[in-house]
Amino acid sequence: MTAQRLASRTPTLAGVKRAAEKIAAILPPTPLLPLEIEGRTIWCKAESLQPIGAFKIRGAWHRLSDLSETEQASGVVAFSSGNHAQGIAWSARRLSIGATIVMPADAPVAKMEATRRLGADIVTYDRMTESREAIAARLAEERGATLVPSFDDPWIVEGQGSAALEAAAQLQGMTGKAPSQLVICCGGGGLASGCALALPDARITIVEPEGWNDFGESLRAGQIVPVAANPPPTRCDALQTLRIAPLTFDILRERGAIGVSVSEAEVAHAMRVAMTSLGLVLEAGGAVALAAMLCGKVTPDDATVITLSGRNVDPETYASMIAA
Amino acid sequence: MTAQRLASRTPTLAGVKRAAEKIAAILPPTPLLPLEIEGRTIWCKAESLQPIGAFKIRGAWHRLSDLSETEQASGVVAFSSGNHAQGIAWSARRLSIGATIVMPADAPVAKMEATRRLGADIVTYDRMTESREAIAARLAEERGATLVPSFDDPWIVEGQGSAALEAAAQLQGMTGKAPSQLVICCGGGGLASGCALALPDARITIVEPEGWNDFGESLRAGQIVPVAANPPPTRCDALQTLRIAPLTFDILRERGAIGVSVSEAEVAHAMRVAMTSLGLVLEAGGAVALAAMLCGKVTPDDATVITLSGRNVDPETYASMIAA
Repeated sequence: MTAQRLASRTPTLAGVKRAAEKIAAILPPTPLLPLEIEGRTIWCKAESLQPIGAFKIRGAWHRLSDLSETEQASGVVAFSSGNHAQGIAWSARRLSIGATIVMPADAPVAKMEATRRLGADIVTYDRMTESREAIAARLAEERGATLVPSFDDPWIVEGQGSAALEAAAQLQGMTGKAPSQLVICCGGGGLASGCALALPDARITIVEPEGWNDFGESLRAGQIVPVAANPPPTRCDALQTLRIAPLTFDILRERGAIGVSVSEAEVAHAMRVAMTSLGLVLEAGGAVALAAMLCGKVTPDDATVITLSGRNVDPETYASMIAA
Repeated sequence: MTAQRLASRTPTLAGVKRAAEKIAAILPPTPLLPLEIEGRTIWCKAESLQPIGAFKIRGAWHRLSDLSETEQASGVVAFSSGNHAQGIAWSARRLSIGATIVMPADAPVAKMEATRRLGADIVTYDRMTESREAIAARLAEERGATLVPSFDDPWIVEGQGSAALEAAAQLQGMTGKAPSQLVICCGGGGLASGCALALPDARITIVEPEGWNDFGESLRAGQIVPVAANPPPTRCDALQTLRIAPLTFDILRERGAIGVSVSEAEVAHAMRVAMTSLGLVLEAGGAVALAAMLCGKVTPDDATVITLSGRNVDPETYASMIAA
């Protein structure tokens, strides 16, 4: 079964629920932590505490565990700046599937080493001159392996959405309320679209780094627009998606999601607040939703849930951002 | 009722169980996170994720919620380098009890500000020349308030012990095993003695900073010995107890607990590992148990549980320790 055939179905709420059950069988829920912002409590879904340090373990597990025995024997290929890579590598090791990951040569050392430690083969490319999609597709073709995209895949979307179902159950248990608003860190929109499917009644806001806010611009334009030429440098390596996909875009457009963007300084401030107020290490890309709340670009309501989506950052980079 | 009368009873396993029930009613369990060390999995009780960033919320809640209405109306006084202070302040605010905290003038800014934000009055003293015990006793006397020591109190010991009961239930759920070994960060021994009461069949190792390892020395000597004159500087501000108390010492001596000590460099390494492998911010004092495991001073077995006991550290100090 090729990636094209797998991707031909539409992700569904039923699929999110099935993913959540599969994931609950192997991973304890990540904590939903309260944080007070100017007298209002918001709820932070600490996906940074997943074994691989990011929510990406969810979609990867849902996808790889649904492959047939024949497909599993032929291995998988993925491209990723690091967190999807680790999700695939972790799931592949647990299922004894061979995994090859195409990663940008400038990915954080922490992410590359962690992926290698999990037993995956790594192939690097130049983020600005080479196409990771093309390299990965060629490798998959050569090896008869299954290509597992990082967001443009119904299994991946459903798997990531399980984070929202889990958070909703936790919030219900602690406050008796359903999430009214989800504020979600966004690169290609796998997490955001999955969470939107999971909770049909919640308002959805996606958050991107300034200059990389193509998803927000696409939602405003009503059609997919790529990142503008020469985007600014960003510490949010996990969110440097140059072009999104109809699969995730259509879900979020139909839900009336809106997008906001945050500056590097706002992200660094959020990383400091996560450190001092929650005791959590966040990578820049995992802190953008918190940044949007802290700088007032999103207004908290009675039952706001945000994602703290990842923690994989080199110690030196982290030290420089929190001490600033 | 004075502190002396309150302290006259002996802490018990039944008391730990009652404390655990009271605490479970207001606080979700902190995660018990697996960490692989040279092929062995150890289990890390992330008390750093408590709302105040340390396990001290447990004993404080157990103690303050057991005060009579009359006692609550007269307020409480405590002395603490910061984490007990926050536990008392948090519990006092929730119970509408007035709280005065005696803190060393050189306590981390993060701890002092957090305590003030929780609504407590703060009185500072010089750690090397003044007696916090004397200052706190005088304040309590003047105000008719209840003195709440940071470890030399049966309620405090029982409350802290609830962390071990909670961890044991989590480990049982995830692996079907009971903890065989507990490795515990230790200042005055409130947490360690409470955990020893909680789990009568586990081996107990306490961990202290080098030069401040009076508890370990006392266990070796069979009697309480104070910290030697002119102890070295340490980043482990939470563990700078100059003299321990019979209450905690007797429990740990009777259990055959042993003590090990770790260097500042070993602590810094543990803080980096907690950051990169678990996504957790730890203060130095909260990382000593992990440090002892990582440097091989304690050998992991099949069901080793360690405490990650606190996270309250100033960002600049933290940045300098993890980037080194």
